[in-house]
Amino acid sequence: MILGRIAGSVVSTIHHPIVEGRKLLIAERLDAEGHSTGGYVIAYDAIGAGHGEAVLIIDEGNGARQVLENPTAPVRAVVVGIVDGLDIASD
Amino acid sequence: MILGRIAGSVVSTIHHPIVEGRKLLIAERLDAEGHSTGGYVIAYDAIGAGHGEAVLIIDEGNGARQVLENPTAPVRAVVVGIVDGLDIASD
Amino acid sequence: MILGRIAGSVVSTIHHPIVEGRKLLIAERLDAEGHSTGGYVIAYDAIGAGHGEAVLIIDEGNGARQVLENPTAPVRAVVVGIVDGLDIASD
Amino acid sequence: MILGRIAGSVVSTIHHPIVEGRKLLIAERLDAEGHSTGGYVIAYDAIGAGHGEAVLIIDEGNGARQVLENPTAPVRAVVVGIVDGLDIASD
Amino acid sequence: MILGRIAGSVVSTIHHPIVEGRKLLIAERLDAEGHSTGGYVIAYDAIGAGHGEAVLIIDEGNGARQVLENPTAPVRAVVVGIVDGLDIASD
Repeated sequence: MILGRIAGSVVSTIHHPIVEGRKLLIAERLDAEGHSTGGYVIAYDAIGAGHGEAVLIIDEGNGARQVLENPTAPVRAVVVGIVDGLDIASD
Repeated sequence: MILGRIAGSVVSTIHHPIVEGRKLLIAERLDAEGHSTGGYVIAYDAIGAGHGEAVLIIDEGNGARQVLENPTAPVRAVVVGIVDGLDIASD
Repeated sequence: MILGRIAGSVVSTIHHPIVEGRKLLIAERLDAEGHSTGGYVIAYDAIGAGHGEAVLIIDEGNGARQVLENPTAPVRAVVVGIVDGLDIASD
Repeated sequence: MILGRIAGSVVSTIHHPIVEGRKLLIAERLDAEGHSTGGYVIAYDAIGAGHGEAVLIIDEGNGARQVLENPTAPVRAVVVGIVDGLDIASD
Repeated sequence: MILGRIAGSVVSTIHHPIVEGRKLLIAERLDAEGHSTGGYVIAYDAIGAGHGEAVLIIDEGNGARQVLENPTAPVRAVVVGIVDGLDIASD
């Protein structure tokens, strides 16, 4: 899984029953301290994540399809959780 | 999924029923603002994408094969949608 | 598999029976000499790894799901072993 | 799929029925204009590709195994087509 | 598949029938000329590879599990062959 922050959404039309009407989010990739890395991920939303929220994204097709409960969805990444905090102990 | 822009096509012959006659596109990879990253993806076309169009590409084999409705196609990436817009809110 | 060192944990809520209550760790990626590379991995814990410990992480969805004995878990990476040592011979 | 150019072959012995006797090629990775990127791929040959030829390589295990018509082959990448040309339109 | 050179081994305990007692190797990643790239791979040994030997590594979970003849092993990479030589023709 990877850490991301919701930056926006993609306006597009994909004809597949499981993804029609589902929001397609653009998430910045975050490093382990929660800072942007410059990269991004396009992911379907499974939880109702809002703009600016830090999230957990499953970035593996089979796992992502399980979350959507559809073994044939054309999907690689899905937002599966809101990050409430990162607990990084200093050494 | 990743964002791309159609830059051209590959002229090649691959002997497999599902891909013969299907257009094999070269897409520039785009960043979250829609600018070229310098990378590229070779993807089959599932929607009739034209040169210069911004598109969504499923870049995972099992999902790509589902789009082509063929579980044995030698395929990793398929263009699945035209991007009508990117909605990036400024902070 | 990759080498990591436990740096912290993610506080989040993911609604899936197999992962609720399971600790989600942040591990620094290590190079072959055990030094941090700057990258990180988010992984479920299967062994009770503690902060600062060097660990082995299976970073492939199907293998990770097997470790959790659940073929549908939304999981990509799982901590599967503590590293007791790296045996690198000098040439 | 990725673009490559055949640079040589690997002399090795791998004991698996599907790969014994099959040529294992070294292909330089090419960018979308057909220039070398510095990277490489090790791929089985499915088409009789010759040295210096530009080729298409399926670089995903399940798709590669389908090309070899063997669901258990220890294979990740297979050369599946000769590239006759790249059609890149200038903007 | 990728090219590697055996640099050492990992001393660890992973509780899974297929991997207990099996040697877990650290291999430097090599480029197409056989020089170290600075990266590494952690791979199970399927052939009895020795320190300093150049090897072929299957770095894809499903293929790796087939080599170990166990569809549920928590494995991503396995050393499958000794490299006897690289045949790179100069242009």
